[in-house]
Amino acid sequence: MSTIFADRMENTRKSFIREILKVTQQPEVISFAGGLPNPGLFPVDEVAAAAAKVLSEEGRNALQYSTTEGYLPLREFIAQRYLLKSGLKIDPDEILITNGSQQSIDLIGKVFLNKGDRVVIESPGYLGAIQAFSIFEPEFVEVPLLEDGIDTDQLDRILAGSSGKLFYTVPTFQNPSGITYSRQKREETAKILQRHNIVCVEDNAYWELRFAGEDLPTIRNFSDNTILLGSFSKIIAPGIRMGWICAQGETMEKLLIAKQAADLHSNYLSQRIIYQYLLDNDIDEHILKIKDAYGKRRDLMIGLMEEHFPEGIGYTKPEGGMFVWVTLPEGISSMDLFELAIKENVAFVPGSPFYTRDGMGINTLRLNFSNSDFDKIEEGIKRLAGCLRELNSD
Amino acid sequence: MSTIFADRMENTRKSFIREILKVTQQPEVISFAGGLPNPGLFPVDEVAAAAAKVLSEEGRNALQYSTTEGYLPLREFIAQRYLLKSGLKIDPDEILITNGSQQSIDLIGKVFLNKGDRVVIESPGYLGAIQAFSIFEPEFVEVPLLEDGIDTDQLDRILAGSSGKLFYTVPTFQNPSGITYSRQKREETAKILQRHNIVCVEDNAYWELRFAGEDLPTIRNFSDNTILLGSFSKIIAPGIRMGWICAQGETMEKLLIAKQAADLHSNYLSQRIIYQYLLDNDIDEHILKIKDAYGKRRDLMIGLMEEHFPEGIGYTKPEGGMFVWVTLPEGISSMDLFELAIKENVAFVPGSPFYTRDGMGINTLRLNFSNSDFDKIEEGIKRLAGCLRELNSD
Repeated sequence: MSTIFADRMENTRKSFIREILKVTQQPEVISFAGGLPNPGLFPVDEVAAAAAKVLSEEGRNALQYSTTEGYLPLREFIAQRYLLKSGLKIDPDEILITNGSQQSIDLIGKVFLNKGDRVVIESPGYLGAIQAFSIFEPEFVEVPLLEDGIDTDQLDRILAGSSGKLFYTVPTFQNPSGITYSRQKREETAKILQRHNIVCVEDNAYWELRFAGEDLPTIRNFSDNTILLGSFSKIIAPGIRMGWICAQGETMEKLLIAKQAADLHSNYLSQRIIYQYLLDNDIDEHILKIKDAYGKRRDLMIGLMEEHFPEGIGYTKPEGGMFVWVTLPEGISSMDLFELAIKENVAFVPGSPFYTRDGMGINTLRLNFSNSDFDKIEEGIKRLAGCLRELNSD
Repeated sequence: MSTIFADRMENTRKSFIREILKVTQQPEVISFAGGLPNPGLFPVDEVAAAAAKVLSEEGRNALQYSTTEGYLPLREFIAQRYLLKSGLKIDPDEILITNGSQQSIDLIGKVFLNKGDRVVIESPGYLGAIQAFSIFEPEFVEVPLLEDGIDTDQLDRILAGSSGKLFYTVPTFQNPSGITYSRQKREETAKILQRHNIVCVEDNAYWELRFAGEDLPTIRNFSDNTILLGSFSKIIAPGIRMGWICAQGETMEKLLIAKQAADLHSNYLSQRIIYQYLLDNDIDEHILKIKDAYGKRRDLMIGLMEEHFPEGIGYTKPEGGMFVWVTLPEGISSMDLFELAIKENVAFVPGSPFYTRDGMGINTLRLNFSNSDFDKIEEGIKRLAGCLRELNSD
């Protein structure tokens, strides 16, 4: 049977995380596994008001087919926000509304990647990007993340040897590591990519969620040869599946063709609802609430890890976003830890799936802190510490 | 610059129809060009009530990430409807919710097509399918549509010569031709495809919109080797972008992987709203209203064509759907007619884009009747008749 399918489907697999999530959805499990925003912070009433307004005032229009580019006032809002927040001058026509960053990545893969083209990706890297690009059969090249961003020396060396088509990065509160590129690393990365004429795909899904440290420029600030991705998933809600791509010229033309072929246009009613929500509410005030809630959860989790985790375990201390990355001592497997932890009803994601090559990141794991209440974080980290001591004593 | 893009983007182009639509959106133009449902029939108040209910009762859940497959009760509803309407036994797990048929076709292309694989398509065929499949660089093979469906003798001969991967069909009120396969043609088509072991993609976007004649079985009723596509675009509203794929076994597994990589899952809030709408309203009663309105428009359009069009012009008399297909005398170009008509503020779609090869269908065109009011249809067809007489006298 399998010979009837396209070659591109041979090396694809279901998301390991989504499979884990199925196991961990029982209510008794304390899950640090998913990458879910906290639903307690969704602006439900405000979205309901926006939906009611759009449907009563513009219902027939909002339910009809629309343009591939997306709702112009929404694109204008996004452009205006880039100008205000990052000093970026982006024309609304350089913005394409998508069904969230996952579709943005898929469209970019479709438009750029021939089989065997090199995609340079952070190690560890965002699993959704690895999945989406994999379908177009690229050769992945991993460059390690250091504490302040990608290893730029290695990036330069690798690209000097043989160039690539795309460099994919989540430079701010990265998924899975929580790492943020320093200002210097952003500038260096932009320069190296420009020198080797490789397109940067800068995925800023967590950009707005900074609860410590200071705001930094985007890589796009340093290089126009950057495709910038954004999303409403983490600042409004992910179930609406709404994000965007900023790209220019011929790249945008090709992306529009790919988007049109993929699904004509993104859900127009939802675009109208999100725009109405943004118009009638102060999104910055709402984001402040999210940042406050996530910052407190991070502080609690990191504090508990400092207090209870045995010696020799490393972890990142993210200044924003939703994830902490844990490195166990060499030789300790996070899969073994997972098996112990799940017996104690605690779940997380072992690190290996975040690498494109087998055998990498055996001793690493990702913890999500955004989607658990304080008591769950406390209880979960204590149990995890117990499991770690048990592993150490084996 | 263009060398940085993937080879697959070389032969793609923007939809000719969407480009035409931009020209014809001025209010003074009587447009038979688009494939738009009539927005006067959208159940706006009912969708608003459903949205309010979902958000007030299940808001936090409806706004969160969800499963790739789609909302189970919605899939159960669709399965139940197939059983009632077509006697098809489809398990809810054999249904994947997508962002409308366009995405369904894109996912099928992704999962099945290697470069050069043969896709057999009706001639004329659905433009959106040609666009979506084109990205995966297949070889298109066209088989002419006769009055009662595809030319099955030619289909059999072509597949005997060299088989193919997919056969794509809109067997009921086809876009663009309005043609419906007879019961016998459905059965023959299914048999031929089974004999040559080629997968049938049966796109039933207009299925529910029958205003004359009697219901017929789907091709899926005659062959399990059929992927069945459905959509809420024509029976509720297209702006919500919501459709589905029915597929089995390994095909569904691959489609799920492709969907996950494409955008994780379809807009969950919208899935919940549509389900709530279906639960709280009688969809059959609503569809009756649509059928009544479209049937009256078709009768008017066909009647006026009989009365006013010059001799020698052929047209289909569809029993449902949204389109009439017009064939001008040999040697008369519908592009010439388009240029005359647009000066009279009447628009339609010339037939050529519905063929995969250049130079085909020069004397054909598509008229949409669903999206015009009666007075517009009357005035538009009269003006078109005038243009035809003018062309004839040249």
